Amino acid sequence: MSKGLTPRRENYSEWYNELVKKADLAENSSVRGCMVIKPYGYAIWEKMQQQLDRMFKDTGHSNAYFPLFIPKSLFEAEEKNAEGFAKECAVVTHYRLKTHPEQKGKLIADPESKLEEELVVRPTSEAVIWNTYKNWIQSYRDLPILVNQWANVVRWEMRTRLFLRTAEFLWQEGHTAHATREEALAETEQMLQVYAEFAEKYMALPVIKGIKTPNERFAGADETYCIEALMQDGKALQTGTSHFLGQNFAKAFDVKFLNKNNQLEYVWGTSWGVSTRLMGALIMAHSDDNGLVLPPNLAPIQVVIIPILKGDNTKLLEKCHEIFQQLKQLGISVKLDDSDTQTPGFKYAEYELKGVPVRVALGQRDLENNTIEIARRDTKTKEIISLDNAIEYVKQLLPAIQQGIYNKALAFRKENTVKVDNYKEFKEILEITKPNGYTQGGFIEAHWDGTTETEEKIKEETKATIRCIPLEYEPEEGTCIYTGKPSKRRVLFARAY
Amino acid sequence: MSKGLTPRRENYSEWYNELVKKADLAENSSVRGCMVIKPYGYAIWEKMQQQLDRMFKDTGHSNAYFPLFIPKSLFEAEEKNAEGFAKECAVVTHYRLKTHPEQKGKLIADPESKLEEELVVRPTSEAVIWNTYKNWIQSYRDLPILVNQWANVVRWEMRTRLFLRTAEFLWQEGHTAHATREEALAETEQMLQVYAEFAEKYMALPVIKGIKTPNERFAGADETYCIEALMQDGKALQTGTSHFLGQNFAKAFDVKFLNKNNQLEYVWGTSWGVSTRLMGALIMAHSDDNGLVLPPNLAPIQVVIIPILKGDNTKLLEKCHEIFQQLKQLGISVKLDDSDTQTPGFKYAEYELKGVPVRVALGQRDLENNTIEIARRDTKTKEIISLDNAIEYVKQLLPAIQQGIYNKALAFRKENTVKVDNYKEFKEILEITKPNGYTQGGFIEAHWDGTTETEEKIKEETKATIRCIPLEYEPEEGTCIYTGKPSKRRVLFARAY
Repeated sequence: MSKGLTPRRENYSEWYNELVKKADLAENSSVRGCMVIKPYGYAIWEKMQQQLDRMFKDTGHSNAYFPLFIPKSLFEAEEKNAEGFAKECAVVTHYRLKTHPEQKGKLIADPESKLEEELVVRPTSEAVIWNTYKNWIQSYRDLPILVNQWANVVRWEMRTRLFLRTAEFLWQEGHTAHATREEALAETEQMLQVYAEFAEKYMALPVIKGIKTPNERFAGADETYCIEALMQDGKALQTGTSHFLGQNFAKAFDVKFLNKNNQLEYVWGTSWGVSTRLMGALIMAHSDDNGLVLPPNLAPIQVVIIPILKGDNTKLLEKCHEIFQQLKQLGISVKLDDSDTQTPGFKYAEYELKGVPVRVALGQRDLENNTIEIARRDTKTKEIISLDNAIEYVKQLLPAIQQGIYNKALAFRKENTVKVDNYKEFKEILEITKPNGYTQGGFIEAHWDGTTETEEKIKEETKATIRCIPLEYEPEEGTCIYTGKPSKRRVLFARAY
Repeated sequence: MSKGLTPRRENYSEWYNELVKKADLAENSSVRGCMVIKPYGYAIWEKMQQQLDRMFKDTGHSNAYFPLFIPKSLFEAEEKNAEGFAKECAVVTHYRLKTHPEQKGKLIADPESKLEEELVVRPTSEAVIWNTYKNWIQSYRDLPILVNQWANVVRWEMRTRLFLRTAEFLWQEGHTAHATREEALAETEQMLQVYAEFAEKYMALPVIKGIKTPNERFAGADETYCIEALMQDGKALQTGTSHFLGQNFAKAFDVKFLNKNNQLEYVWGTSWGVSTRLMGALIMAHSDDNGLVLPPNLAPIQVVIIPILKGDNTKLLEKCHEIFQQLKQLGISVKLDDSDTQTPGFKYAEYELKGVPVRVALGQRDLENNTIEIARRDTKTKEIISLDNAIEYVKQLLPAIQQGIYNKALAFRKENTVKVDNYKEFKEILEITKPNGYTQGGFIEAHWDGTTETEEKIKEETKATIRCIPLEYEPEEGTCIYTGKPSKRRVLFARAY
């Protein structure tokens, strides 16, 4: 009856791939590295979008749209940024196809339509946006500019994985321009906070806020802030970044403004983004061997009602419709599955696979006894309660499930975060498989000497990277686990997606 | 004070271009033919999206997302479709840039990253979607598939115009698959109806529903339905299309299903779309020499409150905030502009340019007299009414403005639609400038012999095309204005965007 997911302990990676496909979230397309996001998966993404969009607007941002293509010369302008993305860029060289001179029905790129200047398909939009801001900004009165865009971007990847790493992905990218360094820094931090709040309250995903090491910084940024989450296999996943761009793009694109003292200054910038990668995080953080586990705040269907059909169902269905209407009126997204082509057992497995948080089942006997069965997906527990209390019960159950999923993820992270003070132990911890059979590594808090050299050696030898320098860590004297040199605070290591 | 728009009668085309830029809707980008949609323009597009999305979902559709790129061989599969779009396709040939061997800081497409098979940037997604549906459909139980996607598409254009014709544009494309011809036809017609309702109720734009001639059909469709609207200069603008694809794509991509009698059949398809072109239609249909005129149902700001600041404004601002809150509670999108950096007159002109439907102004004297000034953008009339009735008045004014704008456009279309029975008159009408100084042509109802040859000759000689064969026209015996051959019904001609 279950769709036969590979259990996590057998092969976590396979479990993930199968789950994404079997729960109808996404699939590979005929285009190398590009995915098809299926309706059920897209419905979750839409819920994420709606909530994030609300949060962006509540913090004063507006949406806009900038071109998909970036002329190569424009892309080159901010050198570090160009260098950082050059190896992943899809390049448009022609603007027309023509019929193949010999093969009927075949097309070729028309050589006469070769572009004078190649176009880069945006891997990120700083270049095209700052080149536009240049014309929008003259004086301090034009600042700040607080703009976001929902868009697709392309970063050519050799090894792709649905949601986690795809050549094309969907995201939002905020791009703001400010009169002062302080204001831009405050914006960078504010958006990190928005992402953290979204992850925790909507995705039920506890995150660590921190700063990336210079080595892991966004190409073109002075500082990259990030949120990092722990997946069930003990690997970390970066779930959002917010970049303080300093004046780098302003200088590259000559964006100056007249300040209140009538002096020309370069503008300060930020950019911040989250992508369909969040879908991967959501799946990997909470789901189990039976399928998806969705937090109610992002579930396209929060409650499913399944009548146990048998004989004359008139009264039963009447009651189910009544419950449906009552839940709907509370703003709950509810589905009544009264189809008679599948057995209840089949339906149970199906909605379990799809991660529907609450399942309500009602049969003839329940009706006689004035009871109803309510099952929660996250704990796989069920209760028989009085029909009279059903609506109120479900109403209170949804936030309880949301909190429960968060608490579980938080407890998991606590269990799988350790302080380590020597390199031998560090390496061992990364390799130990936990009793559940599929968790290795986790977050490791350790001292580091602050050099890129050490960071890269540790990465080479252990595949663990510095996820971030957590904002909440207190300064603490110590010595680098690798070189023994002095260190002033711990950083967060993990193997990562 | 006015931003000095070129009047429509002087140069309609210039008026449009200036208005799009001065009202902060969109601008040209550094990328040939691609536009930047600015926050105010995008806010209108978002309102359109929200409403259309609701209507799609109410008719049973879900959103999904398919790849931006289409491998050339896939694109070739439906021959007519490929042929129709080949000349407008941006082609990706490389997936990597590398540093220029001689010029520091410059990049070139890495010759070693040349793709084995070129990728077409989607001009429309039938190919990639039907290739996917192939795997989704086995039996009649898998049908219908009712999917929509919000996406960007690229059709390379030599002569571009903001919103009306751009190389990249935003749109939605619905792609549905059905078990029977009848069901697919019903879907095609239903979506046309959805578009017509959206145009009329939200854009305040009366439209003619009709069928395209074979010559104007979507490449790969058996029938193209469309809605056509009349702009103020007497030119037509196609504002939406819904295509009955027959089994063309099913055959090209081998998409078959097992019907209830256990026989394999090809699937029937439809596709339908509207794009950011709707922005062009909205602007050109209603706006005037002072700026935009937005129907309240799509206005990002429906009401602006402007206090006439002078001396001690405490009480005045208190009252303005009170009105603001009361309107907001009614679900009206309202802005209070209490900035003291601009004069009221400057603000009036600014919000007029931006097309805000209702302007509420309140000064000290009003407060003393318990009155308030309420101005409507569409008619440029204003009234002084009692403060006590202000909220109720505004509440009723918004739908009245919505209706007023629609009525005006409908009256305009009626005035500018004529029946013509000979070619000489046909040509004259296209050239006559109406008393307002900028309207020429309009819709012409005339008989046509049904051949592509005649259609093309008329187009060549007059630049007028058959916009559609209107669904509502009754059969009527007549003779073709061009050839004198018999005709069974009139068709709708116009010069068009």
